[in-house]
Amino acid sequence: MKLAVVGGGSTYTPELIDGFARLRDTLPVGELVLIDPAAERLELIGGLARRIFARQGHPGRVTTTADLDAGVEGADAVLFQLRVGGQAARLQDETWPLECGCVGQETTGAGGLAKALRTVPVVLDIAERVRRAAPDAWIIDFTNPVGIVTRALLRAGHKAVGLCNVAIGLQRKFAALLDLAPAGIHLDHVGLNHLTWELAVRRGGPDGEDLLPGLLAAHGDAVAGDLRLPRAVLDRLGVVPSYYLRYFYAHDEVVRELGTKPSRAAEVAAMERELLALYGDPALDEKPALLAKRGGAFYSEAAVDLAASLLGDGGPAVQVVNTYNNGTLPFLPDDAVIEVQARVDGSGAVPLAVPRLDPLFSGLISHVSAYEDLALDAALRGGRERVFKALLAHPLVGQYDLAEGLTDRLLAHNKEHLPWA
Amino acid sequence: MKLAVVGGGSTYTPELIDGFARLRDTLPVGELVLIDPAAERLELIGGLARRIFARQGHPGRVTTTADLDAGVEGADAVLFQLRVGGQAARLQDETWPLECGCVGQETTGAGGLAKALRTVPVVLDIAERVRRAAPDAWIIDFTNPVGIVTRALLRAGHKAVGLCNVAIGLQRKFAALLDLAPAGIHLDHVGLNHLTWELAVRRGGPDGEDLLPGLLAAHGDAVAGDLRLPRAVLDRLGVVPSYYLRYFYAHDEVVRELGTKPSRAAEVAAMERELLALYGDPALDEKPALLAKRGGAFYSEAAVDLAASLLGDGGPAVQVVNTYNNGTLPFLPDDAVIEVQARVDGSGAVPLAVPRLDPLFSGLISHVSAYEDLALDAALRGGRERVFKALLAHPLVGQYDLAEGLTDRLLAHNKEHLPWA
Amino acid sequence: MKLAVVGGGSTYTPELIDGFARLRDTLPVGELVLIDPAAERLELIGGLARRIFARQGHPGRVTTTADLDAGVEGADAVLFQLRVGGQAARLQDETWPLECGCVGQETTGAGGLAKALRTVPVVLDIAERVRRAAPDAWIIDFTNPVGIVTRALLRAGHKAVGLCNVAIGLQRKFAALLDLAPAGIHLDHVGLNHLTWELAVRRGGPDGEDLLPGLLAAHGDAVAGDLRLPRAVLDRLGVVPSYYLRYFYAHDEVVRELGTKPSRAAEVAAMERELLALYGDPALDEKPALLAKRGGAFYSEAAVDLAASLLGDGGPAVQVVNTYNNGTLPFLPDDAVIEVQARVDGSGAVPLAVPRLDPLFSGLISHVSAYEDLALDAALRGGRERVFKALLAHPLVGQYDLAEGLTDRLLAHNKEHLPWA
Amino acid sequence: MKLAVVGGGSTYTPELIDGFARLRDTLPVGELVLIDPAAERLELIGGLARRIFARQGHPGRVTTTADLDAGVEGADAVLFQLRVGGQAARLQDETWPLECGCVGQETTGAGGLAKALRTVPVVLDIAERVRRAAPDAWIIDFTNPVGIVTRALLRAGHKAVGLCNVAIGLQRKFAALLDLAPAGIHLDHVGLNHLTWELAVRRGGPDGEDLLPGLLAAHGDAVAGDLRLPRAVLDRLGVVPSYYLRYFYAHDEVVRELGTKPSRAAEVAAMERELLALYGDPALDEKPALLAKRGGAFYSEAAVDLAASLLGDGGPAVQVVNTYNNGTLPFLPDDAVIEVQARVDGSGAVPLAVPRLDPLFSGLISHVSAYEDLALDAALRGGRERVFKALLAHPLVGQYDLAEGLTDRLLAHNKEHLPWA
Repeated sequence: MKLAVVGGGSTYTPELIDGFARLRDTLPVGELVLIDPAAERLELIGGLARRIFARQGHPGRVTTTADLDAGVEGADAVLFQLRVGGQAARLQDETWPLECGCVGQETTGAGGLAKALRTVPVVLDIAERVRRAAPDAWIIDFTNPVGIVTRALLRAGHKAVGLCNVAIGLQRKFAALLDLAPAGIHLDHVGLNHLTWELAVRRGGPDGEDLLPGLLAAHGDAVAGDLRLPRAVLDRLGVVPSYYLRYFYAHDEVVRELGTKPSRAAEVAAMERELLALYGDPALDEKPALLAKRGGAFYSEAAVDLAASLLGDGGPAVQVVNTYNNGTLPFLPDDAVIEVQARVDGSGAVPLAVPRLDPLFSGLISHVSAYEDLALDAALRGGRERVFKALLAHPLVGQYDLAEGLTDRLLAHNKEHLPWA
Repeated sequence: MKLAVVGGGSTYTPELIDGFARLRDTLPVGELVLIDPAAERLELIGGLARRIFARQGHPGRVTTTADLDAGVEGADAVLFQLRVGGQAARLQDETWPLECGCVGQETTGAGGLAKALRTVPVVLDIAERVRRAAPDAWIIDFTNPVGIVTRALLRAGHKAVGLCNVAIGLQRKFAALLDLAPAGIHLDHVGLNHLTWELAVRRGGPDGEDLLPGLLAAHGDAVAGDLRLPRAVLDRLGVVPSYYLRYFYAHDEVVRELGTKPSRAAEVAAMERELLALYGDPALDEKPALLAKRGGAFYSEAAVDLAASLLGDGGPAVQVVNTYNNGTLPFLPDDAVIEVQARVDGSGAVPLAVPRLDPLFSGLISHVSAYEDLALDAALRGGRERVFKALLAHPLVGQYDLAEGLTDRLLAHNKEHLPWA
Repeated sequence: MKLAVVGGGSTYTPELIDGFARLRDTLPVGELVLIDPAAERLELIGGLARRIFARQGHPGRVTTTADLDAGVEGADAVLFQLRVGGQAARLQDETWPLECGCVGQETTGAGGLAKALRTVPVVLDIAERVRRAAPDAWIIDFTNPVGIVTRALLRAGHKAVGLCNVAIGLQRKFAALLDLAPAGIHLDHVGLNHLTWELAVRRGGPDGEDLLPGLLAAHGDAVAGDLRLPRAVLDRLGVVPSYYLRYFYAHDEVVRELGTKPSRAAEVAAMERELLALYGDPALDEKPALLAKRGGAFYSEAAVDLAASLLGDGGPAVQVVNTYNNGTLPFLPDDAVIEVQARVDGSGAVPLAVPRLDPLFSGLISHVSAYEDLALDAALRGGRERVFKALLAHPLVGQYDLAEGLTDRLLAHNKEHLPWA
Repeated sequence: MKLAVVGGGSTYTPELIDGFARLRDTLPVGELVLIDPAAERLELIGGLARRIFARQGHPGRVTTTADLDAGVEGADAVLFQLRVGGQAARLQDETWPLECGCVGQETTGAGGLAKALRTVPVVLDIAERVRRAAPDAWIIDFTNPVGIVTRALLRAGHKAVGLCNVAIGLQRKFAALLDLAPAGIHLDHVGLNHLTWELAVRRGGPDGEDLLPGLLAAHGDAVAGDLRLPRAVLDRLGVVPSYYLRYFYAHDEVVRELGTKPSRAAEVAAMERELLALYGDPALDEKPALLAKRGGAFYSEAAVDLAASLLGDGGPAVQVVNTYNNGTLPFLPDDAVIEVQARVDGSGAVPLAVPRLDPLFSGLISHVSAYEDLALDAALRGGRERVFKALLAHPLVGQYDLAEGLTDRLLAHNKEHLPWA
């Protein structure tokens, strides 16, 4: 089995490698190709990857290359984990929306639109090259904004599934609080990528007993504290919103916080530098503890499970993925991409049925999904008016002059990434 | 033919009377009953109504009564035009949301929810009494918020149609600008009550040529000026939003305006006093010019047309009304109430087909319709948590602490109208 | 010695009575007259006052009257503790400024101006009647806003000193934290009423060792927590701001809090009702514990000390009072009223010298003092333009359209108290 | 007579040259040295300067140099017109404060503090070198923020006067509206640099008839339109505020405008490029019309007049300058720098007496002057805490968390200019 990782030079990659090494029984990888144009960085990561495999006695081979077409040739699955424009662009996404009084975030709101505009064309180009070099390969997309990127991949006819670590992170968190094995917990997880709610926490499987009321009663403070939401939000709604709902439920508070705190620039850049320095140590043969602070926890477990199911080695399994709606949420078009539990096997992912949603959730989902449709249109076709329209359609913008001011800034800060701008 | 007007003591009523008088060929009213508990005021209005009928040679009889059951008995149609809590409550609706930085408006946002909570139980009680006294009567509801009130009436099984004068007002405005007869103009009007867009302005009928591009080119400034929106909004969206969209597209600007201007209290109260003084003049036998400033223009024309169609005297006709969605907008539940063009005859109103809507409109419609569902639930069942939830679901609120602060104020300012609060 | 209390029917009064009873050696009151137009309430308070005196063996006589002129006749000192418009007006002061996005507070900002406008004419009228009935009496003013009211009294030539309990409250707090007797602590307290900073906390007297650095090091969290300011504000400025500085240093946070919390209306009204019920209990002969929650702590101690010094029984003493600047703060006019430590004896209060202030404090003091000058002008002469100008001059308003919107609301909500409005 | 211009390579310089050429009778310049480290740009400007002198028959010599010490040697007056960090730094100053909801402006608020911090050390270093090379030379400072920079120069003992074109611009504007010669109009101009009000517009001289009431009655709309303030502000205050008061009187409106409009970056950069292209044209021998749009109108007239008075050729004259307060405004320290009418001759500038100011003006002046004191302290001594304190002291900031967020951004965006940051 051959796997390729596009964006393999990311400082996240050792997390993925560690998962492949630990879970080699689930997913017997023969060759793992890390692909990245940043040669020096790639070598650092590649070296560490080989040492991790060696230490854990993994028989597979790790190779590195800057040549995308060669790297993906014959692959069974290709993982996409790109960041077009790198940390510099992300920091912009987090900053200029604040000038207009709007949240600055890399996947939500105007910053997320900027990321989508930069990313979609690059991802589609890579996917096309994957299709030529490995026509049967599954694309597993971690590239944010996962919802819009997966929508782009699916509309272009690619074999793609979108993946995010929010659901698995909550599953592990809840399992620990309940003192249960993670595999014994299933989440009724529903919404769009980064706009999801856990409606139930079930024992054993999708039809098991709902443990959520008891979980909230016993551990509500711990759960709410992690999400930085008031405990009362969870108790009153009776569900667990994703961390990203904070940008909606507490938007103005977040804006004020962001405007009166140091930007995360120095912090993140320092951490990346420190990680790369650690990775270069020839004695290091495991993922360093510092990586846990970088985000992305349990992302390798999710990726291994998903790849195993898609490649036929894991048998059908229920996993939280991003895929076409196809009637699952009746208030969305069939070709909207949703994030829900799905049955996954070698033929792809099919969502499990979702009971009628409370209007409190369906209203916001509809609104954001409509924005995503316009965002994708802007990413595919370009043009200032399409950007403006997507922003006006976003529930966190919605106002004419805000959309205008944000459009201007988005274009000014992303000129080098948007040929049409 | 017998018509009854519940809330007949309103200062608006002479507008309605004037329409009945002018349009007596369309709608041959034999008896018109004005019903209102405010006896003194009702006498003033009733006297003027009789003089208007007399002056115009209308053969019908105008009667007045405070007895609802007697008044509606045997009526063919009953018009609802109530204001629970009167101008005092409305002024509250316009004010306290500003304390939380939210728009204060009588039908939109938190103020609109307050009005819905006060109004729905009263309207349902009246409708039930109408059903007993006049089982075959059509209810024509002008009572705001028309969308939620009509939803309540339909769910309770009443023969009801909701009516608003936004569409007819724009039709007359456009006709004047285009120098065409109003009847020669049809609007592709779509959305929810007070959340609508004119997608096309058609010559002759629903299939006629679209005159909107030319209208905007020639008269965009006049249209935009009326709506108090920038001309560019119309040109860029290519549609004409209703005046109420300003509370969304320019929300913060409106809040700032409202907070830095005198409240409308004195102004409206003064106008009402002045109107009542005029109505008391036994020499007055037509609606005074001042009434035009009170809002509600062309509302009598719309009401006469609708009643004529419903009572079988006008033949089937296409009119803009509020009625069940029933699949017209596929992204809304069937039992949502929408405001669109509908074919109306003695059996009621059936929406015309609507082409797939731009996501810019459908996203916001979905969000507000979900709020309306929760608002109706709160109005029917009461309870602080249901009020909170409806507010959190509203796209102009959406934040936890805003919803909490608004809930508290809504309840504090409406205690006397909400027995459960 | 005869003392009179104007506003003696306040629910605060038992605090004062308790102090007179406990401190009878410091201030041997022969007759205490409680004056209030609210007869029923006054009887309740008067009864409790007599029981408190009796229980503590105080030989003085407590009388009550609604007749101001008779009550103050021959008094040695008259205490003013009025609330023109009562709690209802105060609740308005706390509410309508929020509609404009400004803090709603009874002594700070627009709400404080409203209170000044209502209060100054009433206080001046009472003072004039005191002057006639008791020409040598000292007026001790607790009536808020104390700074502006004292300025009005002094400019009209009255024998008046303004008093507030902020300084004594901090002194007692600091003494407890430092485990010292209150009398052993002197505060370098400087600014305007409700706009003060403690620059030093001295052991023994005005020239003693400064204990503030040690106090902040050991108890900074406790002090900051009381003030609801971040600990870092105290550490970085090296001083202790009064609680009221929070309305400046954290203005927007306070506005948001006020707009998203229940108003204090129900809470305060409930407490007043509960207190009055307690007072009516003929078995009660001490101030109830609940009174401590009502604010005003240590106010009786401050009043007794001040009266004792002014009436020549306490000898000269250094106390924090409100009096003419007279060059103490060189950047203010001589006839500004400041709140500082002063030497007080039978001839009145003379401020101690204040070293050159840090511009961080003097800039804000200058700005607010200029506002107070205009506020007093508006209170004395009336007129919409003077109100507008005072608001525009306030550092928490400062913007044209805010000042306009606030002016309109101030006048609308205070019509009954402002004959010229 | 020898004059030197530090920062002579500015695109503004041709405005100055044009003035020197036109007004050569007032100020007979023998040698004019343009000093700038940007050699290429300096040559462009120098060439044009020579052509302008030649065309107008001016006998003086224009030289250019990058060598500051040589350039200023033996000069009679040295004009400072620097921009440390260039347009790039200014654009930062206009942008990052918006992230905190504060006005972004190059001389007012947090952006102005950044400019002061960058500029003061550079100016003081240059002044010291001027003192060595030309001990008797007058320094005329146009470098912004002029108030703080002049304060720094005077405290360091330099022979300096600060100059701004706001007053002369208004004088010319009023003269044109009144159809009078500019010399026949004197302004009662008072405040701090960029925080001034015209209290009177006098015919003939400082004691002449006040034409302001008539001017406002006849031309209030034109004056207000220029300042972008509502006409009513002028009428109600009875004075003409400087354009910069808009950042105070309409702060939130400006922030919203700035956040919803394109930044001025592209516009200004484009204009500079266009100007430099024009200057390079060997046929051009006058200042191009485009320069008028660049700001700085009448600045050469003001500079020529001031230099003529200081160098003894113009006789004593009354001019608006920035100089020590020395008791002119009694509420400010003597060593504050104010901007008022002053009598200027070879010994320097002495302010004319100013009548007692309305508290509406003196309160704000005091507050901003206190900020300037702290800003200068931060510029001279550096350190994060001094920056924070200056920001907290500014009336447009004033809040703890805003000051913190702004401090962080100011330092992050100015690291290369602030060695201590």
